[in-house]
Amino acid sequence: MPRTTETASFKFNHTMLRVKDPKVSLDFYTRILGMELLSQKVNSDFTLYFLAFNHEGRELTNEEKEKSRFAREGVLELTHNHGTESDPDFKGYASGNTEPGKGFGHIAITVEDVEKSCEWFEQLGVQFKKKPSEGKMRHIAFILDPDGYWIEIVPAVLEL
Amino acid sequence: MPRTTETASFKFNHTMLRVKDPKVSLDFYTRILGMELLSQKVNSDFTLYFLAFNHEGRELTNEEKEKSRFAREGVLELTHNHGTESDPDFKGYASGNTEPGKGFGHIAITVEDVEKSCEWFEQLGVQFKKKPSEGKMRHIAFILDPDGYWIEIVPAVLEL
Repeated sequence: MPRTTETASFKFNHTMLRVKDPKVSLDFYTRILGMELLSQKVNSDFTLYFLAFNHEGRELTNEEKEKSRFAREGVLELTHNHGTESDPDFKGYASGNTEPGKGFGHIAITVEDVEKSCEWFEQLGVQFKKKPSEGKMRHIAFILDPDGYWIEIVPAVLEL
Repeated sequence: MPRTTETASFKFNHTMLRVKDPKVSLDFYTRILGMELLSQKVNSDFTLYFLAFNHEGRELTNEEKEKSRFAREGVLELTHNHGTESDPDFKGYASGNTEPGKGFGHIAITVEDVEKSCEWFEQLGVQFKKKPSEGKMRHIAFILDPDGYWIEIVPAVLEL
C-alpha cells in the first residue's frame, strides 16, 4: 500500500507509560535494557523522560539526542507524576493485562539471542512474567519493568 | 552511553494494544493513519495484527513485510480476542488514562504539519481528545482510536 500524501510524513514515534519512581525506572531502562536517555522535561508537577536505543554506532551529542526525540521511531516516554515515589497511599499503576483496566498489553524488545539475554536479566535480578523455559512459547520471554509493565523479549530477524 | 555487549542487538520493536473489532481498527490504522499491515497471525481464540509505517519508499513483498515484523522499530501489534466485536456484554478496553486502570498513557505519531493532519482527521470523522486550538499546548493534538486509546499528534523534527 503506497503512503498517501496526507500521511507520508507519519512516524510511530513513541509510547508513553506512567512510572512511580523515575530513579528506579531509568536505571532499569538504561543499565539493564541498554536504552539511552534522550531528553527530560521537568514541569511543575510532572517530569517526562524520553528514551531510545542508540542505533547510530556512535555517541550522540546532546543536541542530536534532543532532536532525535521527535525525529525517529522506537522512543519510550516515561511520565513521572511528582510524589508517587514517596506516597504511601499510591497504589501503583495498572499493567493493562488484568481487570480492571485491561487494554494495553506490553512493549516488546527484539534481541539477537533470547536465552542469553534472559541470563543477563536473571543476573541483574529482573523479575520474569514468563521465562523461555515456561509455557508453550519457548522462543520468547516476558520480563516485568519496575512498575509491573510487561516487556516481551522476542528473537530479532536480523536482516531483511 | 555506549551500548553494552549484552544489549547491543536490542530494539524497541513493538507496542501491543487489545482492540474490540479488528475491522474497525485496521481501517483506522491503515486508511486514516497510513500504516501498513505487515502480518496477521490467527490463533484459535485470538488474532494478532502487526502494523507499521512503510519508510522504504517502495512496496514491500509479503516476505519482506513478514520479516520486518521483528526486524524494525515502530511496530504496532493489535490483539483481537475473538468475539468481543459482537458481545453485548463486552464493556470495552481501558485507555489507561483514568482510574481504575491508569498506567499506559498513549502512543504518538509525529507528523510534518499538525494543523493539516488534524484537518485530514476531521474530514474523516476522527474523534479528538484535544484539538490543536484547545488547551495550553497549541502545537500538539490528541485523537482517539476506535477503542478510545489516546494518540498524540506531534510535530516531527524532520532531520537531525
